[in-house]
Amino acid sequence: MGSDEKYWLGFDLGGTKMMATVFDAGFKILGTHRTKTKGHEGAKEVLDRITETIKEAIDDAHIKTQHLDGIGVGCPGPLDLDRGIILEAPNLGWKNVALKDTLEKTFGCATVIANDVDSGTYGEYRFGAGQKARCVVGVFPGTGIGGACIYEGKIFRGKTGSCMEIGHMRVQSGGRVCGCGQRGCLETVASRLAISAEAAAAAYRGEAPHLLEMAGTDLSSIKSGVLAKAVAADPVVERIVRNAAQHLGGAIASVVNLLAPDVVVLGGGLVEAMSDLFLNEVRKTVDNRAMKSFTKSLKVVAAQLGDNATVMGAAALAAEAGDGKR
Amino acid sequence: MGSDEKYWLGFDLGGTKMMATVFDAGFKILGTHRTKTKGHEGAKEVLDRITETIKEAIDDAHIKTQHLDGIGVGCPGPLDLDRGIILEAPNLGWKNVALKDTLEKTFGCATVIANDVDSGTYGEYRFGAGQKARCVVGVFPGTGIGGACIYEGKIFRGKTGSCMEIGHMRVQSGGRVCGCGQRGCLETVASRLAISAEAAAAAYRGEAPHLLEMAGTDLSSIKSGVLAKAVAADPVVERIVRNAAQHLGGAIASVVNLLAPDVVVLGGGLVEAMSDLFLNEVRKTVDNRAMKSFTKSLKVVAAQLGDNATVMGAAALAAEAGDGKR
Repeated sequence: MGSDEKYWLGFDLGGTKMMATVFDAGFKILGTHRTKTKGHEGAKEVLDRITETIKEAIDDAHIKTQHLDGIGVGCPGPLDLDRGIILEAPNLGWKNVALKDTLEKTFGCATVIANDVDSGTYGEYRFGAGQKARCVVGVFPGTGIGGACIYEGKIFRGKTGSCMEIGHMRVQSGGRVCGCGQRGCLETVASRLAISAEAAAAAYRGEAPHLLEMAGTDLSSIKSGVLAKAVAADPVVERIVRNAAQHLGGAIASVVNLLAPDVVVLGGGLVEAMSDLFLNEVRKTVDNRAMKSFTKSLKVVAAQLGDNATVMGAAALAAEAGDGKR
Repeated sequence: MGSDEKYWLGFDLGGTKMMATVFDAGFKILGTHRTKTKGHEGAKEVLDRITETIKEAIDDAHIKTQHLDGIGVGCPGPLDLDRGIILEAPNLGWKNVALKDTLEKTFGCATVIANDVDSGTYGEYRFGAGQKARCVVGVFPGTGIGGACIYEGKIFRGKTGSCMEIGHMRVQSGGRVCGCGQRGCLETVASRLAISAEAAAAAYRGEAPHLLEMAGTDLSSIKSGVLAKAVAADPVVERIVRNAAQHLGGAIASVVNLLAPDVVVLGGGLVEAMSDLFLNEVRKTVDNRAMKSFTKSLKVVAAQLGDNATVMGAAALAAEAGDGKR
C-alpha cells in the first residue's frame, strides 16, 4: 500500500449499536466492525468500546493506525461541532463528552463529528439516492423521525449545528404528547414507534391476531421486520401503516413547499422493511398536497446505502475537512 | 459625479403599485419614483409604465441613463431566473414576458430579476433587520403570505428558482379552501386577506360596529390601516388578529424547527400597522411551540425597511451579479 494513498474512517454511534468502517480514497470499503453500544454501562465503557471498534475496523482493513488520515463520527446530538463535543446523549448516558479530542489523541488523526442524520443524508447525497442533487431532504422514521437537508453540497445547518427537526413539525392541534414536551408533533403519529404503539393496541384489542402471535403487545418486540410481516397478515396493521405514511407525506409536502428539493430520500428500518407500501403512500400524498411547481420534477425515493449511509457520510465529511494531520 | 462611481437601480413590481429607486455604490438613495401598476390595462401598457418609472427615477437621481451599472427587479412569480422571464403573473395579465431582455435593450445595462419576497428579505438581510445573520427567514402576510430564506448570504432557492411558500404549509386538516387548490393552508387563516374576511363577517354580524362604520363589509376597503384602528375599537377584531398571529406563530415554529434561523423578520402592511400586537403574539407562540435549542437565541423582529426592502434588495442583487456591461 503506497504512502500516498489516503484512508478515512467513518463511525456510526447509535443508541443500540455502533459501527466503524475504513474507506480508501475512492470510498471503497476496506474493513468494518460493529458491536452493541450498551449505553447503560456508562460513558467510560462506551468510549472504550468506540476505541476498540475503530481498532477492529482498522485491523479488518489490513492497514495500520498511523495510515489513517481522518475520522468522521455520526452521533446523536445536541453537539458542539466546532469543539467536537457531544453535549448530551441520554441514550449513551453522556454529557459533555469531548469525542473529537479523545479520538484525535488515541488515533493521531483529525476527527470531525456530525449529527447522525446529517451524516446519513450526506452519505446518500455523495454515494446513494441523492447524488448530484442541488437540494436533498432526508427523512428517517425510527424511534423518532430524523431529518436533514443537503443544499448545494453542504449540510444545511441553520444558525449553527444541526436542524431539520421534521419529526417536531406540528401536524395535529391537540394531538398526542410528544417526547419534546409539545403535542401533535409528526413523530407522535408517523414514527416507527408510533406505528408500533398503534399496532400493539390493535393487537391487544384482538384486531391483529397475527401480530399478537408473532410479537405480543410489547413495543420492544414490534420492530420494523415484525410490522412488515403483520402488514401482510393483518389488514388493520396495513391501515395503520398507510395512515402514518399519509401523515408523513403531508408533513413532507409542507417541507417541499418550503425547500423545493430535487430529491426526498426516505430511509431507516421501517422504510427498508416495507418500502413499496410506505413510499407509494408518501409519494401519493406529497403529489396531492404539495404545490405543482415543486412536485413536477421531485423524486421521492428509498435510501440506497442502508446501514452504510452514516459511516460513508461521516468518512466523506472527514475527507472534506482536510487531509488529517499527517 | 466621477465616472468611477457606480449606480444601481432597484425595481419593485407589485400587483397594485410599482417603484424604481436609484442607489449609489454605498446604497444611499439618490432618486425614486412610484406609480400605480394598473395590470388590467394589459401587458404592453405595464411594460411601458415600468420603462417610464425607471426613467423618472433616473431623472430624480440627477444621473444619466448611461451611468446606470445594473438593474434589479423584484417581481411576482413564477420566474425563469436565468433567462430573466416572468413566466406568469395573473395580476399583471402577463405570460412569458422577457423582462430582462427588454430592460437591457432599453437601458443598456445588465438586469437581474428575482422573486419579490426574496428581494425584500434579501434587502432586510443586507440593510435592515437581518443584517449579519447566518440564516434569516422573512415572512410577509398580505393577500397571501410570502416567505423567503437568506442562508449564508444567499437566497435559498431549493432545486432552482424561488421557494419558501410558508403560506401553503397546511395548518388545518379539513380547513378552508385555498387559492392554491388545497385546503387548510396557513394563508387561509393568517394572511391579511383572511383576517379582513373574518373581520368583515364580524362587522356584518354587528359585533364590530366601529369597523362597520369605518369600512363596511367590503374586503377591498378593509386594509391594514383600517384593521389597526378596528383592533383598538372592536374587541372581536383584536381577538381575530391575535388568533391569526397565533396560527402564523405556530407555522413559524415548524419552520424554526426545520431551519434554525438566527432571525425571523416579519414585514408587510399588516405587521407595520400593528407591529406590537402582532409581533408579540407571534413571538409568544414561537417561544411556546418551537424547540428550546432553536428558540434560545432566536430573534423575531419587525422589518426595518418598509416599502424600500424590495428595491434595496433587488439593487443589491444587481450589484452582486456584476458591474453591468460598462
